[in-house]
Amino acid sequence: MTASSSLPPETVFDWLDTEAAKRAEAGLTRRLRPRPAQQDELDLAGNDYLGLARDKRVAGAAAAAALRWGAGSTGSRLVTGSTELHAELEHELARFCGAQAALVFSSGFAANLGAVTALSGAESAIVSDKYVHASLIEGCRLSRADVAAVAHATPDAVRHALSTRRKPRALVVTESVFSVDGDLAPIEELAGICREHGAALLIDDAHGFGVLGEGGRGAVHTAGLSAAPDVVTTLTLSKALGAQGGAVVGPRRVIRHLVETARSFIFDTALAPASAAAALTALSVLKSEPGLPEKATNHAVDLSMQLKAAGLHTTLPEAAVTSVRAPSPEAAVSWAEACAEHGIRVACFRPPSVPDGVSRLRLTARADLTESDVERAVKVIAETAPPGATA
Amino acid sequence: MTASSSLPPETVFDWLDTEAAKRAEAGLTRRLRPRPAQQDELDLAGNDYLGLARDKRVAGAAAAAALRWGAGSTGSRLVTGSTELHAELEHELARFCGAQAALVFSSGFAANLGAVTALSGAESAIVSDKYVHASLIEGCRLSRADVAAVAHATPDAVRHALSTRRKPRALVVTESVFSVDGDLAPIEELAGICREHGAALLIDDAHGFGVLGEGGRGAVHTAGLSAAPDVVTTLTLSKALGAQGGAVVGPRRVIRHLVETARSFIFDTALAPASAAAALTALSVLKSEPGLPEKATNHAVDLSMQLKAAGLHTTLPEAAVTSVRAPSPEAAVSWAEACAEHGIRVACFRPPSVPDGVSRLRLTARADLTESDVERAVKVIAETAPPGATA
Ligand SMILES: Cc1ncc(COP(=O)(O)O)c(C=O)c1O
Ligand SMILES: Cc1ncc(COP(=O)(O)O)c(C=O)c1O
Repeated sequence: MTASSSLPPETVFDWLDTEAAKRAEAGLTRRLRPRPAQQDELDLAGNDYLGLARDKRVAGAAAAAALRWGAGSTGSRLVTGSTELHAELEHELARFCGAQAALVFSSGFAANLGAVTALSGAESAIVSDKYVHASLIEGCRLSRADVAAVAHATPDAVRHALSTRRKPRALVVTESVFSVDGDLAPIEELAGICREHGAALLIDDAHGFGVLGEGGRGAVHTAGLSAAPDVVTTLTLSKALGAQGGAVVGPRRVIRHLVETARSFIFDTALAPASAAAALTALSVLKSEPGLPEKATNHAVDLSMQLKAAGLHTTLPEAAVTSVRAPSPEAAVSWAEACAEHGIRVACFRPPSVPDGVSRLRLTARADLTESDVERAVKVIAETAPPGATA
Repeated sequence: MTASSSLPPETVFDWLDTEAAKRAEAGLTRRLRPRPAQQDELDLAGNDYLGLARDKRVAGAAAAAALRWGAGSTGSRLVTGSTELHAELEHELARFCGAQAALVFSSGFAANLGAVTALSGAESAIVSDKYVHASLIEGCRLSRADVAAVAHATPDAVRHALSTRRKPRALVVTESVFSVDGDLAPIEELAGICREHGAALLIDDAHGFGVLGEGGRGAVHTAGLSAAPDVVTTLTLSKALGAQGGAVVGPRRVIRHLVETARSFIFDTALAPASAAAALTALSVLKSEPGLPEKATNHAVDLSMQLKAAGLHTTLPEAAVTSVRAPSPEAAVSWAEACAEHGIRVACFRPPSVPDGVSRLRLTARADLTESDVERAVKVIAETAPPGATA
């Protein structure tokens, strides 16, 4: 028996307070700030890239579906949770992306967990970009595979890890557009390397889908890989499509395999009908307005260029995300707060949400921003910049 | 380099077909069967225990919230995803359960992942009932803790594992009502054992909340543990509340810790407003109709007793779930199909969804069943029973 055996019940969670104190000291406290339904702030923090979350058609489809199908799906996908709405959404997602099939999950997080674990295993090596999203990292940890987290966006590191692997099968894991800085993975080159080494390629297109490529078909489509027999794409329905949920898109045999083995699919209640209907309608809005994505990416470039011109360290956006370096976690928090006081909502990313440990503001552009929105945002962000933020 | 290095891309996923063939041979193929919005079938498969998913007030609240707040929440809870709706739902859940605080996740699966991982770690031992839900098992696997999966519903096994652990901290993990057979964990005894050994207790009340206890306050409330400083409860909003999402309910310091450290909370888009509003309204319906839960549990007992009288191997339901043994996976599938042909929808549970490897039909009762529904269901299930299903 250990020393803690005789703890009184009130002290069992004392260690949580100790950890909270450590975080506070490092400037890493986080707090929830619930927002009202209507806001005057200019939102450069959310991932609603096309401005569809509050689009009347999209929100109206969600409302109609709740009334017609019920508020919840009542069960897991393999029991009572699969409605014709889910099937239609899967069909349309696959068609839009140019892939054989698709499978809808309750979140992008769950889609990543399911895809990584079901497509690897004890016989597999996983080679993952070390900056990938937490959901992909959790998938790797759950996989029982040999996992190598290699240098960010470095094809040679992937090649080396594949050629020195000890397992017969291999899965390479990357994002297309990285979620923090908005930079692009070299996915065509990665696909070539995978082929040299008999590896499958899994691309999380969460921030590319609906934003990049022909009519928003995403980075995988642009790379000509959406029908490839050895490539699997994961998506979220919660960003460009303005809804909730996630999906895996790829070869039919992969989708069938996920239905039968992915634990985050099998053991999870199906996506609510309202969210499935919203995603389906957002997809049809996107098809009817193929110019929307470019508006978002143009605004992102404007935002980044103007911030750079103001002397800030900003990344060049490949999609609709850019980031601005802050000198410390504390400075990032006060900077974001100062922006909010001036009516501009930006996200503040600090460890552990930043893969390199550098705190920054993360900015997202939306299709429905105006030029004057961008100018106003740049002015506020530049004027509130803390010492050390400018070059 | 390994033999697979020269695989042509079309063959990279050939192993999936090999695995599919193995599953087919073992009678373990699974297929999605999308359902229409209106069904004549009597549903004994879903987890909509109180019949609230299609309740006009609940579905209406979902619809109104989509129109007012948008189809999606637009970001993670710590960025733009927390609305006043989420905060209100958290407040009401905590109050209803009699706990200090609550935190809403995008699913019950995510709530379990977050609670188990954030409340353990490399310094912790986890002692888990070996029949717990996949989401709790995945949480254990992700935790970096020493994990002991002990005999089902066996307090002595928990005591032994706690007293021989090598780590200072400990977390005991159980369901209240087990999801497959509907049997109850000895949670009061477990709480006592935890106290003897300085361990925290995490109880997944997914199938107890809304169904058991005073007005549906759940199994943890009944055990007098909902305000305990060393007990944490996880819930889902997707079963008795008829919506989607999950929650963790417990001491304030635990909730604060989850906000700051649970990766399935931080790195996941917030629950859609429609689902949060549906759960909130379902909770208020439950408060105004405190007799609803007992209707569901009474029907479950009737169902089980009548099936037993017909000679079938059924479990005695402690909440609203019961199960009936089938002689083989194939027999379970054909049995469920035969029931469906006669208008009764039951769930067919086979490996790996059954912890003991025994295939069965899983039946759920709802508050809105009638006596004649129960009689009809029993008649069909008994008449279609395969050889070997009766005692
Ligand atoms: C790259 C990436 N993948 C996956 C996810 C998870 O998707 P979701 O929020 O829909 O669960 C996110 C964001 O949350 C993300 O940024
Ligand atoms: C015991 C238990 N815990 C957790 C979950 C997961 O909840 P959700 O389906 O809301 O993700 C389920 C069911 O799916 C369950 O049966």
